[in-house]
Amino acid sequence: MKPILLALPGAELTARRLAHALGAALGVVEWRHFPDGESYVRVKTRLANRKVVVVAELDRPDDKFLPLLFLASAAHDLGARAVGLVCPYLPYMRQDKQFMSGEAVTSTYFARSISAAFDWLVTVDPHLHRRKSLSEIYVIPSVAVHATPLIAAWIHDHVQRPVLVGPDGESAQWVAAVALQVDAPYTVLRKRRLGDRSVKVSPLNFVGRGKPTPIVIDDIVSTGGTMIETVKQIRSQGGASPVCIAVHPLFVGESYRELRRAGASRIVSSNTIRHRSNTMDVTELLATAIASQLKGVQGRSHKWDASKT
Amino acid sequence: MKPILLALPGAELTARRLAHALGAALGVVEWRHFPDGESYVRVKTRLANRKVVVVAELDRPDDKFLPLLFLASAAHDLGARAVGLVCPYLPYMRQDKQFMSGEAVTSTYFARSISAAFDWLVTVDPHLHRRKSLSEIYVIPSVAVHATPLIAAWIHDHVQRPVLVGPDGESAQWVAAVALQVDAPYTVLRKRRLGDRSVKVSPLNFVGRGKPTPIVIDDIVSTGGTMIETVKQIRSQGGASPVCIAVHPLFVGESYRELRRAGASRIVSSNTIRHRSNTMDVTELLATAIASQLKGVQGRSHKWDASKT
Repeated sequence: MKPILLALPGAELTARRLAHALGAALGVVEWRHFPDGESYVRVKTRLANRKVVVVAELDRPDDKFLPLLFLASAAHDLGARAVGLVCPYLPYMRQDKQFMSGEAVTSTYFARSISAAFDWLVTVDPHLHRRKSLSEIYVIPSVAVHATPLIAAWIHDHVQRPVLVGPDGESAQWVAAVALQVDAPYTVLRKRRLGDRSVKVSPLNFVGRGKPTPIVIDDIVSTGGTMIETVKQIRSQGGASPVCIAVHPLFVGESYRELRRAGASRIVSSNTIRHRSNTMDVTELLATAIASQLKGVQGRSHKWDASKT
Repeated sequence: MKPILLALPGAELTARRLAHALGAALGVVEWRHFPDGESYVRVKTRLANRKVVVVAELDRPDDKFLPLLFLASAAHDLGARAVGLVCPYLPYMRQDKQFMSGEAVTSTYFARSISAAFDWLVTVDPHLHRRKSLSEIYVIPSVAVHATPLIAAWIHDHVQRPVLVGPDGESAQWVAAVALQVDAPYTVLRKRRLGDRSVKVSPLNFVGRGKPTPIVIDDIVSTGGTMIETVKQIRSQGGASPVCIAVHPLFVGESYRELRRAGASRIVSSNTIRHRSNTMDVTELLATAIASQLKGVQGRSHKWDASKT
């Protein structure tokens, strides 16, 4: 029997694309809020003995979390053999240690809750910084799909003489991988973080030679501070107007406009988060990873029973 | 050592009152949102080997839930001996079965998550309908404090000739208990639910004799539909302008004004949810229940380890 995909509100289009790519069925879920703000969830498709995949877009995650848990629990209750989670953007990856005493290490706690509710996880390029692998915090089988081939292909198709720029040390891994695939030079800048919305890039090692097109690449663009500063420094040092590429285009507030204003000639992103900059489609990459999870994962006992100790 | 109370945003006043009543310390928590909408939580008070009580106002619960989990997990990580939850209003109690196939039984799922994160629970008059006790869904020690003595005392102090009215069968338990305590007659109406916002009360058995003051009592007033209809029917049958009493004054949208307009002479509530109608203070009742939990509960192993199976 075909697996069934269920979409969280907002992820309907992604779920439809994935269902098409996988040859899976799309289930119907009724969502609403009671007048007092509580969530109502009803699965209108029979799930008994079926493999279920929940598709969720988890940027701005807090008010989506209970509905997500409710859907996972309902799917288990309704007899699903296994319930996986596909979230193209995995939130709560940045607070991966106590930078100051007393801080909630939210990436660990978020991972625990997801691991308790789902049987497996597929996502795109999670923000692994101090951690090497999702398996350090997610105790369920977890697959991180890499968007680098999409980025490399886009650059190959659209830019003649690229020179890749990573705005900070954290971006080095993406930039190096893409540079290898497009056979282009690259440089990685150093960043000093001054607060949530302010960064300083220094020193700038990038020098445009014979007018190549600088391509600034980062995994997450949130307030855009890092990327805006990088674009400004490239421009101030005589570099050409750069192309900016984000895997996860959060683009909080006015950041997209500010990035354009700073001098980005083009802003390009993958569709892990819906945004007008989306140009690279992660559907096929996700579908391949999901298919291998669906093949590998056998039904498990009811997840939640484990915590009733 | 004194137990430490930690307040979720919005529950600071309740926590301060409870700390005073219990002779407990009030801990300091820093809360903020990152620009991308993720929550940041930092406990600035040392919790090692201390008993911790998290105080949360959980009306409109969805976006408060992850911060609540994060605080509970952080408290455990920081070495708290036990972490209890005090929520004067316990949400997600109404969907206690599948009324239609495929529905998420959210009261069960919500209870599981809370039970996994906390060591005990104290609340005021949870909406137990088909269930007899919180222990059917909460696997942690759970105490339901009753507001009926407060309601009885308020009526005794403010109303000369009360006649109590329960708007529907679900309210019978509250009304009967209060009637016994104030030694007043009471009646319970029948309700036919037509949707979230519309109810029909019929038939009306209440008849005012010698102009007593009707007192309409219900546990939760959300859209106010039930209470508004009850007030209208009392008025249309020649009853005096009634007093309306709610344990949990959710009062969604314009419902408070509509209830006044329908003919309520006065609207009174307990402060389990902050609202202008608050007149009855649950602090002392809660403090007594919390004190007994703090005495009874010994430290437990880290809650979350149980689910790592």
